[in-house]
Amino acid sequence: MAAPAALRPRAASCRILGLDPGSLRTGFGIIDCTPQGERHVASGVIRTGGGELAQRLRHIYREVAALIEQHHPQEVAVERVFVHRNPDSALKLGQARGAAICAAALGGAALYEYAPRAIKLAVVGTGAADKTQVQFMIQTLLAVQGPLAADAADALAVGLCHGQTRRLQVLMPEVTGGGTR
Amino acid sequence: MAAPAALRPRAASCRILGLDPGSLRTGFGIIDCTPQGERHVASGVIRTGGGELAQRLRHIYREVAALIEQHHPQEVAVERVFVHRNPDSALKLGQARGAAICAAALGGAALYEYAPRAIKLAVVGTGAADKTQVQFMIQTLLAVQGPLAADAADALAVGLCHGQTRRLQVLMPEVTGGGTR
Repeated sequence: MAAPAALRPRAASCRILGLDPGSLRTGFGIIDCTPQGERHVASGVIRTGGGELAQRLRHIYREVAALIEQHHPQEVAVERVFVHRNPDSALKLGQARGAAICAAALGGAALYEYAPRAIKLAVVGTGAADKTQVQFMIQTLLAVQGPLAADAADALAVGLCHGQTRRLQVLMPEVTGGGTR
Repeated sequence: MAAPAALRPRAASCRILGLDPGSLRTGFGIIDCTPQGERHVASGVIRTGGGELAQRLRHIYREVAALIEQHHPQEVAVERVFVHRNPDSALKLGQARGAAICAAALGGAALYEYAPRAIKLAVVGTGAADKTQVQFMIQTLLAVQGPLAADAADALAVGLCHGQTRRLQVLMPEVTGGGTR
């Protein structure tokens, strides 16, 4: 049996796929994480449109699988969902997450989850940052050229949070606990 | 573009996979639907255990994909989820549904959803039937030998509901509307 991910020695450099799944739009952001910092590779939004449920989930799965095949990320990061006010929205979000996470897991990438506060703290410096601040900081930190969709910014944010966490883990493996899996 | 499923001519006989996805257990039931009635082929429960989220979803996906590869169902039926009291449970259920439905859709099977009341009405004769009545009627109607797990019975129930609906559609295509998709 393989050792738990937290105990495995980790490469200093890594390609990360950040995902922000949703029933209508799934944001994605790919970054390269090196000892010197993080670099933007690609980002965008998978739009599922208004088709039948099975078609929409298949579309998310296929697009995430295609991203993994094209960019070969070793690790995938998603936002941890804690409490959702609306059960119907939670169900739809869950279905989209199921499709996206399946594609990531079957593509061989390890999955990491981060709390929303941890993501905002990593990107903006405060856990109470709003969406506009996250979007602005992502564009600045990763020097993204041109307009950046909110869902793509959110996906890059969770990827960046994971990149920073794993960089600390590589530098100080005994001190840091790493992302929750 | 293919015609909507409701408008396509339907074969009198069909193999159906009924699924009852859940984060810990996913029930499955395969039945053959013919003009004479429905016949039990296989049923059981996919247990996901207590591993990491990605592992659990991958397990559901792989097991459903393996069922489709082994039994070649043309149509897949699941229960339509309307309202869930607990958003956290709805999210977990959604994730399991996302994995199972993805596997079905990528396996080429058409997906049909049925309301819980419609399933109970088809199997027991009343929309207010309880789980024990559904289990007893499934065992009787499909002549299932030996013990039948509750999740497998629920999966066979949605499969049977779809089988009865499509049999009516074949007999009276102008009158019936069919399962909601």
